[in-house]
Amino acid sequence: MSVALRSRSRKLAKKTVPRRQARGIRTREAILARAVDIASVQGLEGLTVGSLANQLQMSKSGLFAHFGSKEDLQLATVETARRIFIENVTLPAIAARKGMPRLWGLVEYWLTLIERRVFRGGCFFSAASFEFDGRRGVVRDRIAAIMHEWIGAISRAVYEAQKAGHIDSKVDPTRTAFEIHAIAMGAHWAHQLLDDKQAYSRARTIVLEKLRSIATPESPRLPI
Amino acid sequence: MSVALRSRSRKLAKKTVPRRQARGIRTREAILARAVDIASVQGLEGLTVGSLANQLQMSKSGLFAHFGSKEDLQLATVETARRIFIENVTLPAIAARKGMPRLWGLVEYWLTLIERRVFRGGCFFSAASFEFDGRRGVVRDRIAAIMHEWIGAISRAVYEAQKAGHIDSKVDPTRTAFEIHAIAMGAHWAHQLLDDKQAYSRARTIVLEKLRSIATPESPRLPI
Repeated sequence: MSVALRSRSRKLAKKTVPRRQARGIRTREAILARAVDIASVQGLEGLTVGSLANQLQMSKSGLFAHFGSKEDLQLATVETARRIFIENVTLPAIAARKGMPRLWGLVEYWLTLIERRVFRGGCFFSAASFEFDGRRGVVRDRIAAIMHEWIGAISRAVYEAQKAGHIDSKVDPTRTAFEIHAIAMGAHWAHQLLDDKQAYSRARTIVLEKLRSIATPESPRLPI
Repeated sequence: MSVALRSRSRKLAKKTVPRRQARGIRTREAILARAVDIASVQGLEGLTVGSLANQLQMSKSGLFAHFGSKEDLQLATVETARRIFIENVTLPAIAARKGMPRLWGLVEYWLTLIERRVFRGGCFFSAASFEFDGRRGVVRDRIAAIMHEWIGAISRAVYEAQKAGHIDSKVDPTRTAFEIHAIAMGAHWAHQLLDDKQAYSRARTIVLEKLRSIATPESPRLPI
């Protein structure tokens, strides 16, 4: 092989490997996006390598190359759902000013995520929570950790709003976070199962009234 | 055959058939009690004729004699869970006086049912709701109808409490029922998934405060 040719083949090799890797990453992402949708409708346990392969028109062995087991697939699906949640809820909310605006942002972006069906079956994590709460294992533990993270984020936003002088300092952030979370989850339940068209607007009204009842006169105005 | 013998054999036949039927009914009830427990932990979809037969040490064909299909088994399981719920929550609550006592009874007996693990995996219907809300079919429709019935019972209790002069007449019963339901379901979620030991007492405090805030001076006193 001539020096020129050898150099060309080295360049090709350099380019080819990352391209293949990039394609692999894109394929994995496409698989997981579909997996999140399926799991949000049929549950994480309803997500089998077989049914997913069928929907993606891939071979089972092709899917197993990406995920060694059903548990690996479930864990990767949970991580993808978490990323989608953070991108659509946490990040836009923390772009708002610390205090009441950020707290309300968390609620508003969350309700919007459920309402706009970013996850096809509604709220991925509400469904996964109730599906796995009676089980044991790494998938349940990961879902619980992410939900701790989420309720902690709401609780922290209440605390920050107290530090900013927007919420009465006597209020218990843990309890307020619990109430806000329950009302939003209840709206998802009523809308999804009972086809209650008023569920989201009712949840907004209830949370806004709750926040107004604990707001100080220094708090920025909440939406009507 | 003598007249005496014929008469005896008729008596035996009369006794034997109902006895066999009675045994069949008891077997069916025992199967369904186990099915409710399994479904409350693993979900209704996790309830297969195979796994249930295995747990009950029965043959699959023996189980199929009771339930023709997985769907029949799921529907019968849902009905059994509804009966348990009515026996443990609705009936004791409606034994209380119409108005605030009956409304509080519904909440208190429901929280106690979840807390005491009458259903092994927590609240059968919260789990079933989130499992089936994205699906289609008779099982989902039946769960939705039972949940309509339940939220309707809370809403009616609020309305009756208004008629009894215990709750401010300006209050919206639908909204109040939605809030109470969401808080209790949120407690179940926090306790089951996050192992939050304060969840039920927090839910009681929140609902009691809510009820006190809408009670009239004529309302019987609520527990502390």
